[in-house]
Amino acid sequence: MTKEKNVKIIPLGGMGEIGKNMYVVEYGGEIVIVDAGVKFPDEELRGVDYIIPDYSYLVKNAGRVKGLFITHGHEDHIGGVPFLLKQLNVPVYAGGLAMGFIRNKLEEHGLLREAELHDITEDSLIELGELQVSFFRTTHSIPDSFGVVIHTPQGNVVHTGDFKFDLTPAGPEQDLSKIAKVGQDGVLCLLSDSTNSEIPGFSVSEKKIGQNILNVVRKQSGRIIVALFASNVFRLQQVIQASVACGRKVAYTGRSMERAIGIGLELGYIDAPKGTFIDPNEISAYKNSELTILCTGSQGEPFAALSRIAEGKHRHIHIEEGDTIIFSSSPIPGNVLSVNRIVNKLMKAGADVIDNKLYDIHTSGHGGQEELKLMLKLLKPKFLVPIHGEYRMQKMHQTLALDCFVPEENIFILDNGQVLNVSKEKAYQAGRVPARSVYVDGHGIGDVGTSLLGERKQLADSGILSILLFKEGEEIIRKPQIISRGFVYLRESSSFMGEIETRAAALVDQHPADDIERKLSSAISDFIYKKLKRSPIVVTKVIDVTRG
Amino acid sequence: MTKEKNVKIIPLGGMGEIGKNMYVVEYGGEIVIVDAGVKFPDEELRGVDYIIPDYSYLVKNAGRVKGLFITHGHEDHIGGVPFLLKQLNVPVYAGGLAMGFIRNKLEEHGLLREAELHDITEDSLIELGELQVSFFRTTHSIPDSFGVVIHTPQGNVVHTGDFKFDLTPAGPEQDLSKIAKVGQDGVLCLLSDSTNSEIPGFSVSEKKIGQNILNVVRKQSGRIIVALFASNVFRLQQVIQASVACGRKVAYTGRSMERAIGIGLELGYIDAPKGTFIDPNEISAYKNSELTILCTGSQGEPFAALSRIAEGKHRHIHIEEGDTIIFSSSPIPGNVLSVNRIVNKLMKAGADVIDNKLYDIHTSGHGGQEELKLMLKLLKPKFLVPIHGEYRMQKMHQTLALDCFVPEENIFILDNGQVLNVSKEKAYQAGRVPARSVYVDGHGIGDVGTSLLGERKQLADSGILSILLFKEGEEIIRKPQIISRGFVYLRESSSFMGEIETRAAALVDQHPADDIERKLSSAISDFIYKKLKRSPIVVTKVIDVTRG
Repeated sequence: MTKEKNVKIIPLGGMGEIGKNMYVVEYGGEIVIVDAGVKFPDEELRGVDYIIPDYSYLVKNAGRVKGLFITHGHEDHIGGVPFLLKQLNVPVYAGGLAMGFIRNKLEEHGLLREAELHDITEDSLIELGELQVSFFRTTHSIPDSFGVVIHTPQGNVVHTGDFKFDLTPAGPEQDLSKIAKVGQDGVLCLLSDSTNSEIPGFSVSEKKIGQNILNVVRKQSGRIIVALFASNVFRLQQVIQASVACGRKVAYTGRSMERAIGIGLELGYIDAPKGTFIDPNEISAYKNSELTILCTGSQGEPFAALSRIAEGKHRHIHIEEGDTIIFSSSPIPGNVLSVNRIVNKLMKAGADVIDNKLYDIHTSGHGGQEELKLMLKLLKPKFLVPIHGEYRMQKMHQTLALDCFVPEENIFILDNGQVLNVSKEKAYQAGRVPARSVYVDGHGIGDVGTSLLGERKQLADSGILSILLFKEGEEIIRKPQIISRGFVYLRESSSFMGEIETRAAALVDQHPADDIERKLSSAISDFIYKKLKRSPIVVTKVIDVTRG
Repeated sequence: MTKEKNVKIIPLGGMGEIGKNMYVVEYGGEIVIVDAGVKFPDEELRGVDYIIPDYSYLVKNAGRVKGLFITHGHEDHIGGVPFLLKQLNVPVYAGGLAMGFIRNKLEEHGLLREAELHDITEDSLIELGELQVSFFRTTHSIPDSFGVVIHTPQGNVVHTGDFKFDLTPAGPEQDLSKIAKVGQDGVLCLLSDSTNSEIPGFSVSEKKIGQNILNVVRKQSGRIIVALFASNVFRLQQVIQASVACGRKVAYTGRSMERAIGIGLELGYIDAPKGTFIDPNEISAYKNSELTILCTGSQGEPFAALSRIAEGKHRHIHIEEGDTIIFSSSPIPGNVLSVNRIVNKLMKAGADVIDNKLYDIHTSGHGGQEELKLMLKLLKPKFLVPIHGEYRMQKMHQTLALDCFVPEENIFILDNGQVLNVSKEKAYQAGRVPARSVYVDGHGIGDVGTSLLGERKQLADSGILSILLFKEGEEIIRKPQIISRGFVYLRESSSFMGEIETRAAALVDQHPADDIERKLSSAISDFIYKKLKRSPIVVTKVIDVTRG
């Protein structure tokens, strides 16, 4: 077999979706992976905790996989690392904060000891056979976000990671000159973030958000509770600074908040005068005007700190008249209703609620249209693959790229698993590798599939009715027994259940033995639908109680 | 018993929520009801079709209930009419379009023959004992929307219905002078729509929307598919007009679209030159540039016409390159994801999608802050009850009313079921009547409760496992049998199920007979959680197979 001398680019996740980002770049004998994220299921995928990509292509080519490179520490980029490492022990390269989160995850999964972990900075240069990998610092809603440059003999493949161009960021700046230099050196193929391609203009700077937060905090005379993403460590620091400036102590609550502030302090991203932080169980020692509380749950997550506070179930924090809740966040579309429910509860309990609709106290981590165009103009790629977005976002990214003189035939909107073959001269689609969604439910990976989810949906809508028949020899010997759950309220005792029993018994007499399970299930299903307009799962089971 | 000489106002639904509007106003021997709506369940209420108010207070006082007055024909105002009439045969008073929809519903429920239905106009005056009821025309996103004035010896109670102040509406104007006259005559208590109390300013006029739609239609050279609420009959007429002006035929699809256009034509709200409408099965006889298709499903409803079109399952309409889908609508918060899914599918199939973010081609039916203030200034109520809104909206309505000089102690944010006692001099809260949510699931009303929904949730997340034991006399005689659904993929055949069987058998030996069902269920639940981190419903049943 002659070695493949073109570059192959294979997205295993992240195309046509926000989530489970994973991009494969290979050349000759080497494969590198960029990111290993999870996606969070929507309501339809009952019981599913995470969705991850199908790793089988990587497992099949395990010998060639040289490294996993992490752009930043968000779950849709690192959440799959433990699941991947269980199947494939590949060296992981990540920046400071992302590596902190990854260590934490691997420890929880008992994988830390065997993992090969390499810290990277913007100056790292990793050599892997014929490939070299380098990085450039970007700005995003989490510290230590990097773009990745994969140098191949055919040219450079660049992955932007998630980015915006924050020109006055709260933390370190993106390295504009280095990005420009990457562009000057030539970009064969660019994989670029499409999340906010439908948003006109340029995103608001974190510095501006920090000033607005300070103004809001300054106006409050009561206790302040700020809900925000724990991983947005720069934002945490801005809220802490604003609180210190207004003479407030800071308590924090929620597991991921504790973890993020711990790592943030360790890495120096969070910095506050001694005595700023207090424990949540000490808050009663302070006046309300002296208190800021940072908490998780800004997306309305049902078990997060803010939800427990709103429902009066938090151990230390109980809403009082005069409290102000500040959402330094925006609900993602799927979470609007749950955030709403919490806001109504907090207000009913007497709190004021301030959100991003009232003041500019949140900004996206993703660049708007002008920023996507700026990246295109700096990097001047020959080929473009819009990544990290639903189809409509990828499509709009394409439109923006056309405006920036990338020819239409050089832009590829791929599906997950679709292989793009790229050489200096041309790029073309070249088949597919497996890239279905794999569901993680508790400790099970991939054992929950479409048919099981179909059953769960039916159970959810109408419950289940089991009809047990007993036969001895070839004869059905006694009246059916029924077990139901989630179907009707009165269950076994009701006259309706009695009616089902009678019908089942009659049907047994009509259709002895032969195929009785299927026939009875179908007849009883029809009867129930006609009577109640409901469609529970009906299971009939003939149990042989012939004595041995 | 002396007759109560104060007015009682009792919301049975619509407080702290958008949906199931129902307001009771009573004086002495007479009770009138304003609206009888349904609410649509969120994802948590699996299998529930509608939520309706608890009608028991009305049933208990059936002799005094003189009439149900309908403000307009939206589901959250009329959807409950058949369910109410099943429990209580009360005369129904409604305007043209609402009455058309109600007749339709009652026919479907087989209730039309016995119902007492009275058409009203803005000039109607209904006398019911000591009460009189009159009306004023408002503007909203459906024709024939009315405010209701209930004249009592203590003063007038005014219910706005849903309203905005569209000063250049597509249909008839609100009667500003009549509203002002109602205000001059004196308003004791106002119940006013709070839906858009958080939206600053004044809503965009329907006329403007119509012009924008014409501009968008004019630009298209391909086929146009417009998705919108069928009940928004004025909007339908504007799209039809724009299509006629551009030389297009109009087809329509979706059951509620057929019904709305039928009634709209009958009432004269829809008007088009002869030959404008064609049947969906005739579209192949026309060029794409000559076609506009109106369809239901603008909220991403899974079985509506647009969804079937997007999934390639519509009988007559298949997306082609060059089609343009126009959403003349905004997704309500709970529907953003499902609308998104459809948009992505339509685009992948080759269509362009135009929505309200791109052009002003939709406007709300509810007035913004300036409109709510205008209503307050025109009606000058002594007491105010903000209705039709979540708590945050009611609270913001209160703030607006304070700006309009309604004193804080005269504003009442009530819960469903809370009684407000009102006289010329004062108003105060006076106890509660039952007002829980009643769930309609198929043909069952109220038989699905919290515990059943809890079971359905558990079934949805992790499925069910039934363990059957068989005893003869006092002895368990054979190994357990297991039936599972929605739990794990391999079910009965898997080694894990075998392990459960073995454990169950062992436990039976340890704990004979006594309380074995509960003990076994709990032990197996623990075992499953430890192994799989899943919590299916575990049902153990001991079946006596002793021969008779």
